[in-house]
Amino acid sequence: MSNILTIRPLTPENFAPFGEVLDTDGAELRMINEGTTERFHGLAHTEIDAAGIAIVSLFRGQPRHFPYRVDMMERHPLGSQAFYPLAERPWLLIAAEDNDGRPGDPQAFLAHGRQGVNYRANVWHHPLMALNEVSEFLVVDREGEGTNLEEQSYPDPYFIEAADWT
Amino acid sequence: MSNILTIRPLTPENFAPFGEVLDTDGAELRMINEGTTERFHGLAHTEIDAAGIAIVSLFRGQPRHFPYRVDMMERHPLGSQAFYPLAERPWLLIAAEDNDGRPGDPQAFLAHGRQGVNYRANVWHHPLMALNEVSEFLVVDREGEGTNLEEQSYPDPYFIEAADWT
Repeated sequence: MSNILTIRPLTPENFAPFGEVLDTDGAELRMINEGTTERFHGLAHTEIDAAGIAIVSLFRGQPRHFPYRVDMMERHPLGSQAFYPLAERPWLLIAAEDNDGRPGDPQAFLAHGRQGVNYRANVWHHPLMALNEVSEFLVVDREGEGTNLEEQSYPDPYFIEAADWT
Repeated sequence: MSNILTIRPLTPENFAPFGEVLDTDGAELRMINEGTTERFHGLAHTEIDAAGIAIVSLFRGQPRHFPYRVDMMERHPLGSQAFYPLAERPWLLIAAEDNDGRPGDPQAFLAHGRQGVNYRANVWHHPLMALNEVSEFLVVDREGEGTNLEEQSYPDPYFIEAADWT
């Protein structure tokens, strides 16, 4: 099947077209609070339109089953959306470039358990994909007036094969 | 000693003068992503002035030693600051009402390991107080131009006695 997605380990470089990787590894480190706290500064920078504010929510995601059929994507035109895992377990994410208002070919990434991402505003992505177990994420996105969700289906779906995600 | 602080378990009610408690317990629950994800919506609402943006950072705090001397507080006039623990361990926090530009009597709270807080802009609070072990927190606060840190000392310090924090 030609529509099987390749999974790449998530890095700031390969995710750059879509947003930021939240990772202490490589982050700017500031010592604060009289040396009692290490601040890994600015792992994510929110983009929120003037009508909205950034809010913090908690997502609890069911694990996905494989082979997994990727048949839709979504985007949030008015604000970025950041995810950070609360359990140190790997998780999957899928993003795509825009192609005349529709998502282009999906690009799949495997994040390790201490990596989050921040999708920039209006970046096509797949809904949260937890692996193996019910998994919680802290999420920073937008609340406010206006339509901040767009969804599109792929006419020909893509697939992710079963794998050992541990 | 009259300056020994009483520690109260953190609740949305007793923390209300200072900000929000981030807790799935009691939060608004929305089912999203075709029923695969529970969204505990809007646990924290950022307050960021027009010159700034909300950013996500990670704080790694050294555990505090007891008896602990509370001799200073800080506040961030231009933005709220939210903390959520990445390990499910209890942590301590201290906030105070404003008293003519200085912090009033400190109020100490014990948060359990699935509780965060969001200090509203300009609320006096003590720097991060981890307990027992080095502990990480996801932090959502402000980045931007302007002076967003004010510190004040207490002329007569307060104390927190040693306790079993587990």
